[in-house]
Amino acid sequence: MNTKTVKIFDSTLRDGAQGENMVFSTDDKFNLMKTLDSFGISFIEAGNPGSNPKDMEFFRKAAGYPLKNSKLVAFGSTRRKNITCAEDSLLNALAGTNTEYVSVFGKSWDLHITEIIAATLDENLSMIYDTVKYLTGRGKKVFFDAEHFFDGYKANPEYALKTLKAAEEAGAESVVLCDTNGGCFPHEIYEITEIAVRNSGVEVGIHCHNDSGCAAANSIAAVKAGASQVQGTVIGIGERCGNTNLTTVIGGLQAKLGYSCIPKENLPGLTTLAKKTAEICNIKLNSSMPFVGKSAFSHKGGMHSDGVMKNPVSFEHITPDSVGNKRNILLSEVAGRSAVLHRINEIIPGLTKDSPETKEIIGILKDKEYNGYQYEAADASFEILVKKHLGLMENYFDILYFKIIGERVKGGTNPSTAIIKVSVNGSTELSCDEGDGPVNAADKALRRALTVFYPSVADLHLIDYKVRIVDGSAATAANVRVLIESTDGAETWTTVGASTDIINASLTALVDSIEYKLMKDSAKTAAL
Amino acid sequence: MNTKTVKIFDSTLRDGAQGENMVFSTDDKFNLMKTLDSFGISFIEAGNPGSNPKDMEFFRKAAGYPLKNSKLVAFGSTRRKNITCAEDSLLNALAGTNTEYVSVFGKSWDLHITEIIAATLDENLSMIYDTVKYLTGRGKKVFFDAEHFFDGYKANPEYALKTLKAAEEAGAESVVLCDTNGGCFPHEIYEITEIAVRNSGVEVGIHCHNDSGCAAANSIAAVKAGASQVQGTVIGIGERCGNTNLTTVIGGLQAKLGYSCIPKENLPGLTTLAKKTAEICNIKLNSSMPFVGKSAFSHKGGMHSDGVMKNPVSFEHITPDSVGNKRNILLSEVAGRSAVLHRINEIIPGLTKDSPETKEIIGILKDKEYNGYQYEAADASFEILVKKHLGLMENYFDILYFKIIGERVKGGTNPSTAIIKVSVNGSTELSCDEGDGPVNAADKALRRALTVFYPSVADLHLIDYKVRIVDGSAATAANVRVLIESTDGAETWTTVGASTDIINASLTALVDSIEYKLMKDSAKTAAL
Repeated sequence: MNTKTVKIFDSTLRDGAQGENMVFSTDDKFNLMKTLDSFGISFIEAGNPGSNPKDMEFFRKAAGYPLKNSKLVAFGSTRRKNITCAEDSLLNALAGTNTEYVSVFGKSWDLHITEIIAATLDENLSMIYDTVKYLTGRGKKVFFDAEHFFDGYKANPEYALKTLKAAEEAGAESVVLCDTNGGCFPHEIYEITEIAVRNSGVEVGIHCHNDSGCAAANSIAAVKAGASQVQGTVIGIGERCGNTNLTTVIGGLQAKLGYSCIPKENLPGLTTLAKKTAEICNIKLNSSMPFVGKSAFSHKGGMHSDGVMKNPVSFEHITPDSVGNKRNILLSEVAGRSAVLHRINEIIPGLTKDSPETKEIIGILKDKEYNGYQYEAADASFEILVKKHLGLMENYFDILYFKIIGERVKGGTNPSTAIIKVSVNGSTELSCDEGDGPVNAADKALRRALTVFYPSVADLHLIDYKVRIVDGSAATAANVRVLIESTDGAETWTTVGASTDIINASLTALVDSIEYKLMKDSAKTAAL
Repeated sequence: MNTKTVKIFDSTLRDGAQGENMVFSTDDKFNLMKTLDSFGISFIEAGNPGSNPKDMEFFRKAAGYPLKNSKLVAFGSTRRKNITCAEDSLLNALAGTNTEYVSVFGKSWDLHITEIIAATLDENLSMIYDTVKYLTGRGKKVFFDAEHFFDGYKANPEYALKTLKAAEEAGAESVVLCDTNGGCFPHEIYEITEIAVRNSGVEVGIHCHNDSGCAAANSIAAVKAGASQVQGTVIGIGERCGNTNLTTVIGGLQAKLGYSCIPKENLPGLTTLAKKTAEICNIKLNSSMPFVGKSAFSHKGGMHSDGVMKNPVSFEHITPDSVGNKRNILLSEVAGRSAVLHRINEIIPGLTKDSPETKEIIGILKDKEYNGYQYEAADASFEILVKKHLGLMENYFDILYFKIIGERVKGGTNPSTAIIKVSVNGSTELSCDEGDGPVNAADKALRRALTVFYPSVADLHLIDYKVRIVDGSAATAANVRVLIESTDGAETWTTVGASTDIINASLTALVDSIEYKLMKDSAKTAAL
């Protein structure tokens, strides 16, 4: 077994954002940054400040946030041809970004230099050298991304290696070999990386795309050939066929091949990392994704199920627990009871695996999950579910009914109106409100009614609202899952609702959110 | 370049059927069989007649169907321990199946023999030998699937090779090395396959699963080590993380590495093969799937779009045409004007970068994108937008108004009702319908009204419905973007709508989808 360290470099917020339909709000970016940091990813490439003022703004805000494990990296390119670095405004934007680390990409394939940017091969070497020198002179640690390195090496090996040398001589921390078109195979990557490593005096990284379906295998081949940094995106999102899937690489290198990529104790967080990232990217995590997918340890064949219960190693390449996933024996259910117990004990210490309450709660959870709920991110809803079941939750209010009216007339506007009647300790309150769409109207009407009884509800406001179709195949009648993130200024919590009806799903999540707020307030009062 | 022939063996109907939610009707099976045959797949493993009478029935029916390129294969296992082949009813069912070829799997990992089936190592060799001998004696051509061969080789190399030898000596056509748990990496597969090939006097096949995310790379590594049959499933479906994706392997071996897997003239059918298979399996084809996915040749970054238009090889590892896919220049904030023009010219040739119409359309696009629309995926909405602006689009219908009523009573159900009035060439139709939630009700009411004028609207149905909150910060009043994927059986298209109101957004996308369908139908009629 090897115990070599491999640094993991995530580019979801930069290269991943090139994926179809990928757009990240500032909230999303902070969320992902914190998630990657606490999991132990070494580097987070979070944007291109030169070409995008929003990215610049993000780096400015993020500079104040203390990261435990990760370093933020700003991305840019080598200077343009025929000007000095000082004259290049994009490069100066990069140099002026508030990060210790920067990545700059430059050309290493002669075809690109002559055909696409129409420069000479020598001028390109100067562009690389000057840029890295300029940035190190401004105090930066520089990663040089050798774009199309493998295609470049195949076309002109000597020149491709010269581009790495130029970066190294100018003081780059590491040179990163990019399979930009994603078309390489492991045997090629291994051979060429080994040569590049032999020729380099600095750390060598690997950056692959998945156009041949080999990105993970290619990255692992490069590590075996001596690379010690792997770039990719947590769940493989990215342009065309995606970037290297880092959960696959971490699973392969650390859970199987004995390398160290992240703090050992965090490896069981791999599945949660993937789920959270999918949530932030607002995509459904591919259920067959290696290590972290919902089906990655699902056994259907009778023989496989039997075998796995006799000896898991008979049909599982690793234990699902080691990466925080769970085994599913399809048709004969066996739950990940210990994982659930762990969460229950955070709320109510003392319950054991065999307590009847634990079994009941697991039963309720399964039922809810079957109906589209998901408690991975929705801690507040999980806490409410547990406390309600154990009779530890006050009944703050009931919704007696709501009615929603939506209307659109050709050429006209579209007011939505909601009428809601709530009851609190025998008193009722009928309230109505209008809003942008039915959900907004219902939300406003409900809070208006409750503020009569609980003035602190006025402090609560929603900071994020996510909608996901749980099963796309039934189209508009599919199950809708709504995740709501709320805050009262002091604390932030997430709740979930699911239904075939988006209004019902939203209202369920909203009710949980308000109940959570009221529960917190009661606990505070009780403690006084 | 190598011109070695590699036979492709598809097991979608047998091993693929172990995937979660996979069930095939007899129609599905015939459909897939014909599709695989006309594409040129060498072997189609279509079921396990011993364990499943429906599979037996399928083989009986299929025997009458003349296949051009493929051979059907029936699957089974070696005889049970301590009985003769003649006494084994499952084996006799296999021997009696109407196919020239059969696959039988047997154990090659000592742990499985001693722990799972509790036999001796020698008895297992006899089980393999006897079974293959029995089947060849009944006139069958036999493939021996050495289950867990790689794990077996790692544990006890000498014994694992003996299992292959037993099959070979009994007359097997080929021995197939299986990475049953799917946990291997290419360097292991290459090394072990090379040894197995050197030790075998018959053809060697490879059968991988994707639990390490390396199934395609592993299969290609095995071919490079001398294997000449690759087993998998066309689009990678299968238990846990799936089987080897054969479109990826065919793309890699034949489009890139110079092997011959299928008749050369069929390679441009690869994308259609994947789409058809996904339809038969009733799943959405993963858009980032190598070679065949909808995004496999989509370019978003401005520099990538520009590069690919200057010289496709600059950012594409192969030409999309060679595998029947197509290039997409995605429209986005970062895409330049030339990318937009490229898409416009696909609809209306002749407009240039400087045409006033081009500038106007770009202006409209920017406006729409600012309001939450996104046209990257929504080709049909883009086409409608362009044609409407240029006055090339008929006005098929107007929505005069719609009204939606939603209601929930404590403890009660939640019907949603929609009333909609449409006008078509001066005639109006008022229609109502109810559904699961307001969007579903509105969808049904609208299509009900329109079917009166356009019966073909009844053929249209939605296959995917995606909701995204464009800017999470305004919570429930945020902008909602809806993407709808529709089909009429012959073609599939995507439309987009955006609004603060999910119902409005959905209706906009739905109206585009119906208009697109009607436009297609008119074009067809005009061409007659």
